[in-house]
Amino acid sequence: MPDYDLRGKTVVIIDIFRASSAICTALHWGVSKIIPLSTLAEAKDYKNKGFIVAAERGGEVVEGFDFGNSPFTFQNEKLKGKTIVLTTSNGTKAILKAFEANQILIGSFLNITKLVSYLNSQESDIVLLCAGWKNRFNLEDTTFAGAVAERLKSSVHIESDSTLAAMDIYLQAAGDIRSYLSKASHAKRLSHLDIERDIEYCLKLDLAPSLPVFRNGVIENLV
Amino acid sequence: MPDYDLRGKTVVIIDIFRASSAICTALHWGVSKIIPLSTLAEAKDYKNKGFIVAAERGGEVVEGFDFGNSPFTFQNEKLKGKTIVLTTSNGTKAILKAFEANQILIGSFLNITKLVSYLNSQESDIVLLCAGWKNRFNLEDTTFAGAVAERLKSSVHIESDSTLAAMDIYLQAAGDIRSYLSKASHAKRLSHLDIERDIEYCLKLDLAPSLPVFRNGVIENLV
Repeated sequence: MPDYDLRGKTVVIIDIFRASSAICTALHWGVSKIIPLSTLAEAKDYKNKGFIVAAERGGEVVEGFDFGNSPFTFQNEKLKGKTIVLTTSNGTKAILKAFEANQILIGSFLNITKLVSYLNSQESDIVLLCAGWKNRFNLEDTTFAGAVAERLKSSVHIESDSTLAAMDIYLQAAGDIRSYLSKASHAKRLSHLDIERDIEYCLKLDLAPSLPVFRNGVIENLV
Repeated sequence: MPDYDLRGKTVVIIDIFRASSAICTALHWGVSKIIPLSTLAEAKDYKNKGFIVAAERGGEVVEGFDFGNSPFTFQNEKLKGKTIVLTTSNGTKAILKAFEANQILIGSFLNITKLVSYLNSQESDIVLLCAGWKNRFNLEDTTFAGAVAERLKSSVHIESDSTLAAMDIYLQAAGDIRSYLSKASHAKRLSHLDIERDIEYCLKLDLAPSLPVFRNGVIENLV
């Protein structure tokens, strides 16, 4: 990512398991604003000030915080209209690192149709930024990037080989994404965490059709 | 790459178009040693000392040097037993950056069978390091990495999602790699350089079955 110039571009942040899926879900279920943070220290400060704080590291809820990044946590009527603070291993860091972009959106299978439709409606170059896992490639984020690129390809010029590769990965996965991804590292990373239900949900199309945008330090629905 | 710990590992440097293909070819045709360098300034120093120096940037021979990285250049009886200095845009940099590895090999389609057979015979963990293009992913290097991983998969535990993805890319490409890669960025990068013949050659299997290893600052055949 440091080798990509994001200025003037629309960047889509992708962290399928589970930050971007959780963010789409939260906004769809009525959370008003999400403040993404990099560090647990900052998150603790917000917690001490009385904020609701979700903190995940290594797939687990961090002790002392309200919850982690399971999307189901955010399907909660009590969070309607609220501001939530969120820090995760990979996703929120990617969001904050993209600050130079013209526009920063959050994408997941849960909002893919809405996202693609918006991307088609705007003029900027698009960068699909896969958060990955600890600065490394992961299969689920790339599969999603490929799904987005496949949907955009008739209207957008594909510039980079990594996008072409992602599209091919997606085409191999498309028939049964869940089973395709069962070989991926997340199966090892997260399987002990009893998140099968989360994974199942995160791969569903358009179940949380919000359009999260990060601006002025806050994620909210793009109106 | 900075996020991977190469210590104790066997690293295969991959720059299909064209550094690793050129290196395999040179050693197979009898070049004795290749000294890889990062910068043109260093290369110029060697040139002034009387060395034969190959220097490529952006796909072109750099003015003032003996040749670039076209593999055909190295199919030359006059280079037999000689030491050559080589600096290229991506490949030689990748070789030098991998210095912490236990062993650094050079891989290409031209030596794939020999390479895989050697990898199978040794015990270290293996990292397939795709040089890419200007610090970015490219399709040809990943396709080759997938070809190697496919050949190793029955005897090696695949650890990372990027390897799984490379294998899927390779499987899509395998029927006709030349045509699969025609959509890739190299077609745009290099097509004006009249290197169709080079590309054709670099995708052939086992035409230059050397086993280049980089040690003590020099690339030579692993005996």
